[in-house]
Amino acid sequence: MKVSIVGTGRVGSACAFALVLRRLADELVLVGRDPDDGEGDAADLMHASAFLQQMLIRAGGIEAVVGSDVVVMTAAVTRGDGVDRLGGTRDNARLFADIIPRIVRIAPGAVFVVVTNPVDVMTYLTLQYSGLPANRVMGTGTLIDTARYRTLLSEYVGVHTNDLRAYILGEHGETQFAAMASASAGGQRLDPADPMFHMLAERARGEGHRVFRAKGFTNYAIAGAVAMLVEAVRFNSRSVFPVSALLQDYHGLSDVCLSVPAVIGRSGIQKLLKVELSPAELDQLRASAEHLRNATASVNA
Amino acid sequence: MKVSIVGTGRVGSACAFALVLRRLADELVLVGRDPDDGEGDAADLMHASAFLQQMLIRAGGIEAVVGSDVVVMTAAVTRGDGVDRLGGTRDNARLFADIIPRIVRIAPGAVFVVVTNPVDVMTYLTLQYSGLPANRVMGTGTLIDTARYRTLLSEYVGVHTNDLRAYILGEHGETQFAAMASASAGGQRLDPADPMFHMLAERARGEGHRVFRAKGFTNYAIAGAVAMLVEAVRFNSRSVFPVSALLQDYHGLSDVCLSVPAVIGRSGIQKLLKVELSPAELDQLRASAEHLRNATASVNA
Amino acid sequence: MKVSIVGTGRVGSACAFALVLRRLADELVLVGRDPDDGEGDAADLMHASAFLQQMLIRAGGIEAVVGSDVVVMTAAVTRGDGVDRLGGTRDNARLFADIIPRIVRIAPGAVFVVVTNPVDVMTYLTLQYSGLPANRVMGTGTLIDTARYRTLLSEYVGVHTNDLRAYILGEHGETQFAAMASASAGGQRLDPADPMFHMLAERARGEGHRVFRAKGFTNYAIAGAVAMLVEAVRFNSRSVFPVSALLQDYHGLSDVCLSVPAVIGRSGIQKLLKVELSPAELDQLRASAEHLRNATASVNA
Amino acid sequence: MKVSIVGTGRVGSACAFALVLRRLADELVLVGRDPDDGEGDAADLMHASAFLQQMLIRAGGIEAVVGSDVVVMTAAVTRGDGVDRLGGTRDNARLFADIIPRIVRIAPGAVFVVVTNPVDVMTYLTLQYSGLPANRVMGTGTLIDTARYRTLLSEYVGVHTNDLRAYILGEHGETQFAAMASASAGGQRLDPADPMFHMLAERARGEGHRVFRAKGFTNYAIAGAVAMLVEAVRFNSRSVFPVSALLQDYHGLSDVCLSVPAVIGRSGIQKLLKVELSPAELDQLRASAEHLRNATASVNA
Repeated sequence: MKVSIVGTGRVGSACAFALVLRRLADELVLVGRDPDDGEGDAADLMHASAFLQQMLIRAGGIEAVVGSDVVVMTAAVTRGDGVDRLGGTRDNARLFADIIPRIVRIAPGAVFVVVTNPVDVMTYLTLQYSGLPANRVMGTGTLIDTARYRTLLSEYVGVHTNDLRAYILGEHGETQFAAMASASAGGQRLDPADPMFHMLAERARGEGHRVFRAKGFTNYAIAGAVAMLVEAVRFNSRSVFPVSALLQDYHGLSDVCLSVPAVIGRSGIQKLLKVELSPAELDQLRASAEHLRNATASVNA
Repeated sequence: MKVSIVGTGRVGSACAFALVLRRLADELVLVGRDPDDGEGDAADLMHASAFLQQMLIRAGGIEAVVGSDVVVMTAAVTRGDGVDRLGGTRDNARLFADIIPRIVRIAPGAVFVVVTNPVDVMTYLTLQYSGLPANRVMGTGTLIDTARYRTLLSEYVGVHTNDLRAYILGEHGETQFAAMASASAGGQRLDPADPMFHMLAERARGEGHRVFRAKGFTNYAIAGAVAMLVEAVRFNSRSVFPVSALLQDYHGLSDVCLSVPAVIGRSGIQKLLKVELSPAELDQLRASAEHLRNATASVNA
Repeated sequence: MKVSIVGTGRVGSACAFALVLRRLADELVLVGRDPDDGEGDAADLMHASAFLQQMLIRAGGIEAVVGSDVVVMTAAVTRGDGVDRLGGTRDNARLFADIIPRIVRIAPGAVFVVVTNPVDVMTYLTLQYSGLPANRVMGTGTLIDTARYRTLLSEYVGVHTNDLRAYILGEHGETQFAAMASASAGGQRLDPADPMFHMLAERARGEGHRVFRAKGFTNYAIAGAVAMLVEAVRFNSRSVFPVSALLQDYHGLSDVCLSVPAVIGRSGIQKLLKVELSPAELDQLRASAEHLRNATASVNA
Repeated sequence: MKVSIVGTGRVGSACAFALVLRRLADELVLVGRDPDDGEGDAADLMHASAFLQQMLIRAGGIEAVVGSDVVVMTAAVTRGDGVDRLGGTRDNARLFADIIPRIVRIAPGAVFVVVTNPVDVMTYLTLQYSGLPANRVMGTGTLIDTARYRTLLSEYVGVHTNDLRAYILGEHGETQFAAMASASAGGQRLDPADPMFHMLAERARGEGHRVFRAKGFTNYAIAGAVAMLVEAVRFNSRSVFPVSALLQDYHGLSDVCLSVPAVIGRSGIQKLLKVELSPAELDQLRASAEHLRNATASVNA
């Protein structure tokens, strides 16, 4: 399987390392703004792979994406100010408007995994710019928020994260929420009345900030998330992850991308699942959708 | 980690191969009635491990179990007639009464994984003969029934078995039942009214017989189940599996071994989980317990 | 990757279990004489795979081999007498003459891995009956003899089998020999004058018999060997194994199949390597070739 | 197994990620100058491990190293000037003189893996400051140079890196050399007269610089190397790697640390191997030893 990672910053770089160490590609291409941008990492990773399953790893320009099975989008425009968030989003939108159509032309069968923030908006734009069917584009969305939440829950209830069925859904951002009405540990319901679950959801929301404050960026959790999604595509495993996906009459919501549980396999998103939501959670889902629809519209304006 | 497999028939042999191929032990001992019984397999497996992580694998008598971290009990007395089931169970009980205390004396820290049928009765007897605390003895119970059920469900609902939270509980035998009230796929409830789920549970119950009729025995599924349990102990993963465990006021039931969801880690069974049961399912659980209590009593009689 | 195992006896069955436990196929087909022969194993393995990476596993007739990437030949005719070895070989030859052309027609891109004994003769006949280029057919040959030798050497010199470069070459049978002139441990030459190396080579030759006497057959080592070869093809790893291959001017020998070190990748045998041989070893290689040429001729007669 | 990584820069961080992705520890501690230094990475890695085998990962001060089985030393003093190499080494020496004895006191059974440059000198000093026997301290030395060389060779000769027995030995630095007299691919000698092998060795020497120029540092190859060494210790695999080790009458050389092939297992360096060296290579080994003895002396001065 050929995987291309577009964007050679810390996130793209960590994603590449994760794919190498987990042997999840036969061929790996690192695409930077300048074709040489990924050269250091490509060489470093080739050397690392000498200890493992060897892979073909190289840096290149957009044209190197040709024939990819999976394209991971981590590219972003960095702005000096760091304040004008909408401005930054518009810059990323322009970048995607430029490169997504070029990638689709030469990798028409690829599944897209969007990482670039604001990930829900960028996932929507990737669908729009690519003209691909909805199943072929997913954003990492609240997958890492869910990982963070399950890490905390795991410690509290003493059960492996894989056996915790508790999702953070909605926006990968402020309006996200924990879907507690359907949460269970090994099939045993988590009591929605236990205030700890809400406290841990609040803490999970802050974990990204905590990592950010401590190291100035986050990259390992997102790289782990990307590796899991690539593995599900590669092995057509039909595993379930919360990812940012285009909603089409999902609890009455349509035409917006946000995270809900999805079955991932070779063709991308094979199905969206509908977990039980309390009336309050349903309101939160709607609020998240409303917020993201506005955010997307303001970029497209 | 040192693992001993007591019993060198087809099941013990397949368990050993699974542990070698999944690298789940540092030292592996095969214990037969006669100390040489496992020699052919031990040598064959040593050669196989030359291609992988090498292990120390050898055959021996009971004394070779010394210091084991996990003891897998697959030993059974085979009866010519194949008819007198109670007689067969009494023979196995006598066998366990003889060897379990000898094993506990030299491997006092071991976790026991009981495979020998009738597995729920033998698990109970292992606890009785060993004098160990309840967490240190588990039977494979309905873990393979659950695997069979999830295999069928996975095909029907299009979701990976790991994301299916649907248990077969109770006796590893006729009184087992599917816990549908708590069943979900990726967190989405499986509609208990869908008759397919009950049909598939019926088919799952028959899958063991189907394999038995086709090949005269079953060994790979049970070997896979044992490998998963050993992995959970080895990595202290706190994963959840339905295993035969001693109930102590579980939905009001006590002093009987049958399968319910359990958290497995380094110390064995770290906790039993209580999944939601419908009134009918609760009746089935009670009936299973009643049946097994009688079966155990008749052996002890 | 689709792998078909033709032959549903103990060896084919163990190979299938090894491929499941090592996740080396996406689709696995078990082909017996009767299309139902593999049904028990296929169902048992499907249940086992529920704990791991799920696979599509099924039993079928020759027609189910269609489109396979790898075909593992373990089928053999069992003779009641067990004495008339040439007669048995002729039976196997007839079997292969019947089925190999049928397989090639529907799986024209497959790499063949021949396990059926006498493996060197059957590898030659598979080439002949299939009309395939030499790189597409390999026999497991002395790969398991080499594994057995390295297991013993590993214990003696205290180095992992993977770091022992010591081959058993020639016939998988009586005329095989240890290639000591090129043997090394981690790159350090093994002293050909040390009599232990020859003693261990003798013992390795007897290990197969020892397993056979102890358990009546051997299956795990050969299943491990097949798994390694399938892995090398799947990941196009270009790993080096001694396998039975068609010689074409190899140290002056041609038109016979026997084991020499070969580079294995997606297309099968990508290259034969020439390790240094002492004059005595060269004589042994020639004697092995002579013996096998005669054996093959007598079957074809 | 408990692994501590001392030093929280890019190298230590990548090592930690590699250990998580390869599941090579049960407990992982990140030790920075300030106890919080590793907090961002520890949290980020905990979230990443939610997708894999969960691990206990945390940041701490030196005291958190207590009871470690392996200690990976990546800590280094960074100097503003970047010019005064000897000054930098002296700073690192002072750092090690301070912390190594404190670590040994609380983790007396640990195997040390030294990464900090100049790695051969720091390995020697770690032995000196720790008072440990020679087998318990190894430096990553030319392991990554060897990986780089084998990556290039693999492309040239078409054989997997694992089947290439070709070492870069001596100093991890300018005086290193390729041991061509003993080099082989799958047991077939590489012709020392082929000028390509020397050209590729020259290129390999430059690969580190190339990565450094391209990305400003190198981290993935060294992290892969550390993961391999930790794996060999964890599984007591007795695998062979070129690592920086204390020589004691090795080809007549003593009392200096440089890289030669070593057998790595649970107790660290279980044995040094002596590969065949040409007279010219022996001179290079001596020159490397001389150079490193002087470098070490000047630091100790």
